[in-house]
Amino acid sequence: MTTYNPVELILKKRNGFLLDTDEIDFFINGFLSGAIADYQMSAMLMAMYFQGLETAEIRALTAAYINSGKTLSFPEEMITADKHSTGGVGDKISLMLAPIAAALGLYVPMISGRGLGHTGGTLDKLESIPGFNTQYTMPEFRDLVIKHGYALVGQSAELVPADKRIYALRDVSATVESVGLITASIMSKKIAEGAKNLVIDLKIGSGAFMPNLRRAEELASSLIETGNAFGQNVSVIFSNMNSPLGTEVGNALEVIEAIEYLKGNYRPDTYELTTALVAEMLIISGKALDFADAKKQIDAVVNSGKALQAFGEIIIAQGGDPSVIEDYSIFGKAECTIPVLCDQSGYIHKIDSSRIGYALVKIKAGRMKVSDTLDYSAGASLPYKIGDYVEADSVLALVHCNDAEQGMLVANEIKAAYAILDMQIAPEKLIYKIQRNGV
Amino acid sequence: MTTYNPVELILKKRNGFLLDTDEIDFFINGFLSGAIADYQMSAMLMAMYFQGLETAEIRALTAAYINSGKTLSFPEEMITADKHSTGGVGDKISLMLAPIAAALGLYVPMISGRGLGHTGGTLDKLESIPGFNTQYTMPEFRDLVIKHGYALVGQSAELVPADKRIYALRDVSATVESVGLITASIMSKKIAEGAKNLVIDLKIGSGAFMPNLRRAEELASSLIETGNAFGQNVSVIFSNMNSPLGTEVGNALEVIEAIEYLKGNYRPDTYELTTALVAEMLIISGKALDFADAKKQIDAVVNSGKALQAFGEIIIAQGGDPSVIEDYSIFGKAECTIPVLCDQSGYIHKIDSSRIGYALVKIKAGRMKVSDTLDYSAGASLPYKIGDYVEADSVLALVHCNDAEQGMLVANEIKAAYAILDMQIAPEKLIYKIQRNGV
Repeated sequence: MTTYNPVELILKKRNGFLLDTDEIDFFINGFLSGAIADYQMSAMLMAMYFQGLETAEIRALTAAYINSGKTLSFPEEMITADKHSTGGVGDKISLMLAPIAAALGLYVPMISGRGLGHTGGTLDKLESIPGFNTQYTMPEFRDLVIKHGYALVGQSAELVPADKRIYALRDVSATVESVGLITASIMSKKIAEGAKNLVIDLKIGSGAFMPNLRRAEELASSLIETGNAFGQNVSVIFSNMNSPLGTEVGNALEVIEAIEYLKGNYRPDTYELTTALVAEMLIISGKALDFADAKKQIDAVVNSGKALQAFGEIIIAQGGDPSVIEDYSIFGKAECTIPVLCDQSGYIHKIDSSRIGYALVKIKAGRMKVSDTLDYSAGASLPYKIGDYVEADSVLALVHCNDAEQGMLVANEIKAAYAILDMQIAPEKLIYKIQRNGV
Repeated sequence: MTTYNPVELILKKRNGFLLDTDEIDFFINGFLSGAIADYQMSAMLMAMYFQGLETAEIRALTAAYINSGKTLSFPEEMITADKHSTGGVGDKISLMLAPIAAALGLYVPMISGRGLGHTGGTLDKLESIPGFNTQYTMPEFRDLVIKHGYALVGQSAELVPADKRIYALRDVSATVESVGLITASIMSKKIAEGAKNLVIDLKIGSGAFMPNLRRAEELASSLIETGNAFGQNVSVIFSNMNSPLGTEVGNALEVIEAIEYLKGNYRPDTYELTTALVAEMLIISGKALDFADAKKQIDAVVNSGKALQAFGEIIIAQGGDPSVIEDYSIFGKAECTIPVLCDQSGYIHKIDSSRIGYALVKIKAGRMKVSDTLDYSAGASLPYKIGDYVEADSVLALVHCNDAEQGMLVANEIKAAYAILDMQIAPEKLIYKIQRNGV
């Protein structure tokens, strides 16, 4: 491999010049081997934040991430597809989406993350099922996917270790919010896991990381271009994250809501988003002609119970107790249920979903640091969306907790997160638009 | 002290907000105590590079640097003045300036640096005098200045340790070229050493770090504003660094040239610049009415031999062999003297002085890394300036070296650094302008 002076490379990027593939490889590999110090990597990341990264640089960075570890691949005849969400409040979509997609014949090698800050994580939710294991080696994970059509696991240390180390550094050096760095981080994992088709739920709004549509569009194009460069079909759904998704926020509460969904009891918003995301997976994988065709297939496997059966199957396969499907008491119930009452009648104009997510950390429904412990039974039920009418003194939300004192604080925070006004307001659109490669 | 989240502070600067004094103190002290990691400091430095620093931030940073160590002060009646050069090729001005200023009654607490890259360093030059010691504690340094009117020493570990550590990090993280960071680095040392009056030789051109006048003006204003904020008079002389200064480049060669100067044998360019710099020191210190008055005083102490006597006095005081003044053979002579011949007759249009400086590293007249050893006798004699006429086959330069093979390479590099054309060209101005506070 060509050798460079690390300072010269930082300087080059800092001064706005493009880094070529060899230079990016050298920098990433040098960092992993210890030849390039973390203080040089963080300076480079900050320079990348300011100067941005061009398509070719993002592709090279993604490739360097992928090549830092092992990758998975599946036999040609197994059509692989996955979904990635940029993170929201009450986002339990993966729990329904993966079994539905698997029940429809897709192979879903889904690698999920943990909750941090105001957002929850699929792994934490699944671990509220007694015995459910999310840590597998890459060959074990591959076997699960081949046998059951999907698996829901955490990132193995062998998969894109470069991202794991660089993400940790970005987190403590204020270099997270860079389109190029976000793209390489997301796409390297989704390419390395072997998904040939990928749908991204790009969330925008008060409970999301993306503040507005323009920034989201920039990221979407970058994600699609990068996936395409690695032979992956990518579709991005721009979704509204101003109201928490569904009704429940909290680990066990969301798993119960997901099981109810698979039993046919769903809320309009979770139904709309889950169906849209699975439909995109089917369409770009060539398993559905169009949305109407996809919707018919999706409704069929939910109504027939096949999707629920697939969920039960993966619970067993991953060591969990499948009786949770029939007996929610196994999850354990929070001791207190604190109602949040409306101060006034009116229409909900705004919900600060991030504020709700952060508040729930107080009762351990979420965490601020990776090392924080969780209370799986804690959370909140939030039945109302922006545009809904609420009566004074009616129950706006319920806080489920085992710490009444903290629960009261959370209840106050939740109340303050809602802006209720006398004036009527239309419900918000849930899906803004879909951007699909090659279409 | 107020406590902050380091990541929030990096984010704040990255997003273009001003850091207040408490925040800057927290960050610098946190870095020095180890609470803030070097990868966070390098990310902060890169964010500062991109977003720039406002006057108040530079002042706070300078104060934090100063407060990280000990400071010197002198009795009110001792008028202290110093000079700082931003670095050039053949810049031996300090060697004449300090004894002249001291001979005129100023107290000059001069802390100098070492050569790096294409530029030389006053400490290295002085150490070519057998026995000359440049390492003193702060009280010892102060005693030397009080007793002899000046001293020529290196930076003690007790003086602005924050700058020492942060400069080392800037050097390896491509965050050197920031007006705010440069200002804090220069000014903290010059304020902490106790100089009440400071003249800065801000060099612009092929042998300097400043590429053009606009960037130099920005730095000059920042240096003056910062010095003034700490009660220091500051004057900046913008000087031309396109032709190497004087005739000699190389450690012992430059000391010999300086001694010759103090004996009255000087080149027009070294005379003009030395006189201008000392005159500014006298004027802002209130020891001269104007340039004409200052020049008269300066010429008097050089012509009377008092300045040379002051130089001899400090050599003895700092442990050096004063007989070098009369016997240059004590320095040791380089084995080879390789002439560089002109290929053609014509006028010198351009000299790439940095290239000459870097070339001389090959024969150890300079160094690339702090740990590189020097050959004090190595260097080059470069009698011609831009605008001079040279004859074909005449000697353009002489390379002095102990390694003939490397010397030949240096000779070729030096030849290539000169652009000689048939067309006549006017000599360049040496001093562009002077910017003085309060005047």
